[in-house]
Amino acid sequence: MRVVITGGAGFLGRRLARAILERGRLTDAAGAVREVRELVLVDVAAAEGFSDPRVRSIAGDVTDPALVAAAIAADADSVFHLAAVVSGEAEADFDLGWRVNFDATRLLLERCRALPRPPKVVFASSVAVFGGALPDVVPDTQALAPQSSYGAQKVVGEVLVHDYTRKGFLDGRSLRLPTVSVRPGKPNKAASSFASGILREPLAGVEAVCPVAADTRMWLISPRRVIENLLVGHEAPPAAFTQGRSVNVPGISVTVAGMLGALRRVAGDAVAARVRFERDPAIERIVGSWPREFDAAYGRSLGMTADADFDAIVRQYVDDELRK
Amino acid sequence: MRVVITGGAGFLGRRLARAILERGRLTDAAGAVREVRELVLVDVAAAEGFSDPRVRSIAGDVTDPALVAAAIAADADSVFHLAAVVSGEAEADFDLGWRVNFDATRLLLERCRALPRPPKVVFASSVAVFGGALPDVVPDTQALAPQSSYGAQKVVGEVLVHDYTRKGFLDGRSLRLPTVSVRPGKPNKAASSFASGILREPLAGVEAVCPVAADTRMWLISPRRVIENLLVGHEAPPAAFTQGRSVNVPGISVTVAGMLGALRRVAGDAVAARVRFERDPAIERIVGSWPREFDAAYGRSLGMTADADFDAIVRQYVDDELRK
Repeated sequence: MRVVITGGAGFLGRRLARAILERGRLTDAAGAVREVRELVLVDVAAAEGFSDPRVRSIAGDVTDPALVAAAIAADADSVFHLAAVVSGEAEADFDLGWRVNFDATRLLLERCRALPRPPKVVFASSVAVFGGALPDVVPDTQALAPQSSYGAQKVVGEVLVHDYTRKGFLDGRSLRLPTVSVRPGKPNKAASSFASGILREPLAGVEAVCPVAADTRMWLISPRRVIENLLVGHEAPPAAFTQGRSVNVPGISVTVAGMLGALRRVAGDAVAARVRFERDPAIERIVGSWPREFDAAYGRSLGMTADADFDAIVRQYVDDELRK
Repeated sequence: MRVVITGGAGFLGRRLARAILERGRLTDAAGAVREVRELVLVDVAAAEGFSDPRVRSIAGDVTDPALVAAAIAADADSVFHLAAVVSGEAEADFDLGWRVNFDATRLLLERCRALPRPPKVVFASSVAVFGGALPDVVPDTQALAPQSSYGAQKVVGEVLVHDYTRKGFLDGRSLRLPTVSVRPGKPNKAASSFASGILREPLAGVEAVCPVAADTRMWLISPRRVIENLLVGHEAPPAAFTQGRSVNVPGISVTVAGMLGALRRVAGDAVAARVRFERDPAIERIVGSWPREFDAAYGRSLGMTADADFDAIVRQYVDDELRK
């Protein structure tokens, strides 16, 4: 089994890589469970911190055909396509967003199509494919209506994955990931960056700014759970995809006030008091266009699961990132 | 007012051109009604039969950036993008379909984005964007689920038109056209080609083969009506697009049996008897995935209308094509 992860040096990419290495085996497109012999991590920079001999790290631009061909060898079995320009950046730089989030995805699918054996492809999509007038709980049949270029690019990626799968060129699965919280590290240009920042910064003793109102409700998932669900999406047999290849991944629906309440319960009043509100209309517009809650029955039918509650998510962050 | 029609030498393109020349004026993106001074018809072959001095015909490949730049001058006001590889051909030749139906659309939108004044763009989309489990009457909020590459390419085109419009690069309108019947001329590689052939051939004294069952229900529009609705879609002010830039164009829902009944009433039993049934699973699969009827309330709110009934459509064909 040869597995490729684009965005492999990123936060989710590295965690996914560790989970795959630990697991050791995955199911290939023919339904056979096989040992992972090679794990290729592709990203703009080399993935660091891996001493496992199965890991090969490739640094380069995913919009470069030569890089994509080198990364996805002729005998590749599975590709997790996580590489993307985040929502805020794709909105600020239209051309960059379409080039990385769309052209690179197409290039990758074309490369997979050219392989002698059609590989599995797990495409990281997003709740940003939805927008406009939405019901309180979004059903799996909800029409897509992206309100950002990032969302539009994810829709187009899903349509490509669907058509390439339908034609038998590959075995694709597009997983619409909830906003991942708590991400470690630094803020990024995602419009949702604050959904980690308002937990992470106070826990590090630093003041954080929340750019949206306290009653803003979001659809969230923890880092551990999102990796589990990416693997569930990979492992599910083709016959299980009875409602198409795009899946709303289960999450939990929490308001910013609820997130800060969890922070207070886990870390105390002094920590939670480090968040102040300073609304940013550009971020409010993008985040406000995203669904606040999903039915996600289809994803659960595939075996995907959600976190118990946001307190558990905060404790997970403390355990994984602060106590090591 | 400078207007461009891609696919301008085709059946709909030529009719649209004639309608625009006759009308003489259109509303530009700023809302001003202006005289049409130039009408550029772009197609693989030069558009014939136009002596009007306002018409300029350009033959070439719409996937060629130089051609697109030449066709869409810096002061272009409106582009009707009708050029496409039809459904059956896009399914048979995956690369050709994506190149013409998607890459050329993107090239055209990029050219429009580069103009000093954002032009209006009317994109001819299709009911083939829908598929899967569909209600008897498809609402305007129905989720897209294309079951053919042609449908997938139209979805992606709509998403691009939506995002370019949202960013203010152009003023786009994607109109999902019902199957147009009765088309004159020869059969083409569209899966829906028979929906004209089973009327046109018998009326010309020729036997026709119907590849789908008599109870197959389709969403239809006459040539005259589709041109009217393309112009309504062009003329509608931006503020009227309250539910996004993709519009299900009104049509009528008729079974093949109903179409043949109309043929019998208009032209007699002997003519209708020239149709025999010989089912083609490939065509049945594609046509069977399309919606049979739409609510189309949004399109009607923009001022679009449907034909009265299929008898009127058959009579229109006889008047327009056989009595001239």
